[in-house]
Amino acid sequence: MAYAQNLIAALFISFTSFSQSILVISPEILDLFSLNHVFAHRKIPNDNAMYCESWRFTVETNDIGFWTLIPQKCTSFVQDYMTSGRYSSDSSAVADQSLAFANTVNVSNDGMDAWIFDIDETLLSNLPYYINHGFGSEIFDEVAFDKWVNEAEAPAIPASLKLYKELHQRGFKIFLLTGRSEFQRNDTEKNMVYAGYSNWERLILRGPSDKGKPATQYKSEKRKELEDEGYRIHGSSGDQWSDLVGFAVAQRSFKLPNPMYYIA
Amino acid sequence: MAYAQNLIAALFISFTSFSQSILVISPEILDLFSLNHVFAHRKIPNDNAMYCESWRFTVETNDIGFWTLIPQKCTSFVQDYMTSGRYSSDSSAVADQSLAFANTVNVSNDGMDAWIFDIDETLLSNLPYYINHGFGSEIFDEVAFDKWVNEAEAPAIPASLKLYKELHQRGFKIFLLTGRSEFQRNDTEKNMVYAGYSNWERLILRGPSDKGKPATQYKSEKRKELEDEGYRIHGSSGDQWSDLVGFAVAQRSFKLPNPMYYIA
Repeated sequence: MAYAQNLIAALFISFTSFSQSILVISPEILDLFSLNHVFAHRKIPNDNAMYCESWRFTVETNDIGFWTLIPQKCTSFVQDYMTSGRYSSDSSAVADQSLAFANTVNVSNDGMDAWIFDIDETLLSNLPYYINHGFGSEIFDEVAFDKWVNEAEAPAIPASLKLYKELHQRGFKIFLLTGRSEFQRNDTEKNMVYAGYSNWERLILRGPSDKGKPATQYKSEKRKELEDEGYRIHGSSGDQWSDLVGFAVAQRSFKLPNPMYYIA
Repeated sequence: MAYAQNLIAALFISFTSFSQSILVISPEILDLFSLNHVFAHRKIPNDNAMYCESWRFTVETNDIGFWTLIPQKCTSFVQDYMTSGRYSSDSSAVADQSLAFANTVNVSNDGMDAWIFDIDETLLSNLPYYINHGFGSEIFDEVAFDKWVNEAEAPAIPASLKLYKELHQRGFKIFLLTGRSEFQRNDTEKNMVYAGYSNWERLILRGPSDKGKPATQYKSEKRKELEDEGYRIHGSSGDQWSDLVGFAVAQRSFKLPNPMYYIA
């Protein structure tokens, strides 16, 4: 396996260095290319990768709207994205932008400056579960996933843990707003501590009256309650657009990557 | 040049085929990897490409917020993205999702079903201009860009042109809502016709009272006016988040790719 990885790395390095030396060509030369070339769909074997990259674009921008499973032909692509360092790199870039914004906030000492975090694929990674469940290519198995939640061993997304600690240090009150249900409160707290999180202000889970509500509605209502309590919601972090949009939205919202599943 | 391109293609193909045969490994084997590996930042020579991919993620999700120039070290990356077929592929994927949604709309015969398009980098491509201006790595040159607009020779983004025609055929009234100014009306109409567009319902440009307004405000106000006229704004397409958010937003918004510049 290490051999294969080295080979991939070597190939990738030579490809990267090679392409960079080629791609730095003068604008005058590039100008000679017809735009037909640029816009042509090339039916060459990398079409599958290109298709999956573009599918991911529509997922992360929310252009795709509602979806259930990742395209079957993108299973290897998503697996590669999630495990090759790309996912980690994207998560870090989002955390960096979040912290850059947080640094512009004048945190008051009245204790009312808030930041909201979703939990799954935002603070905790369920990648160990999805590695065994097709990276989003299999129909969601609620029983198996609840069992995984019950084990309370999801690791932190490292960039998110670092961001979380920095925000807490700067005086933000941290609210955890998750689509998980009240019956999972203990497991969730246990897992958060296991992953290295502490000092949150409140953990908000779906109660009986939230059952069946779309996530956008449920999370908007909970944000509104925080606003009504006087909290200023500066930032909100989530891997789903339903974590971020609706009403009572944060001053700035931060979309984390997640090409594995969609929550309406 | 053709030789170099073939060489790149060949390398890419072998890399892709090779990695796919490697990456389809059983979950059990993958499970053996530590997540530390997955989340580790690997300081290998592809870090630059990885950095730029992740920078682009924060651009397209709007996580980055306000920005001016692309990172200098991403000039080759953006050039490659824009001209290698990736941009074209992403544009097509967005158009496909837009049409899939449009097909679910019950278009009435009262002529009030509307779709809004931004123009630059949404219907028309200014890539021929940006090829000569560093792909967003140079400070915006308003004089040179206005001269380019005045030439009225920007080509259509093919996937957008196809979408546009399909929407018109289905009975949507098409509104062009652009940040360009009234003094550019003739050039803009001329360019749109040159690129193959026709039959729009109205071309809305910035008038004297819109000068200096942030795009989000200007575009929201114009959408509100259309709503007040009774139009049902089903879809909105734009390469900038400021085309899509604010108030009087469309039922569904479609973010097109643009890693070259940002408009607040």
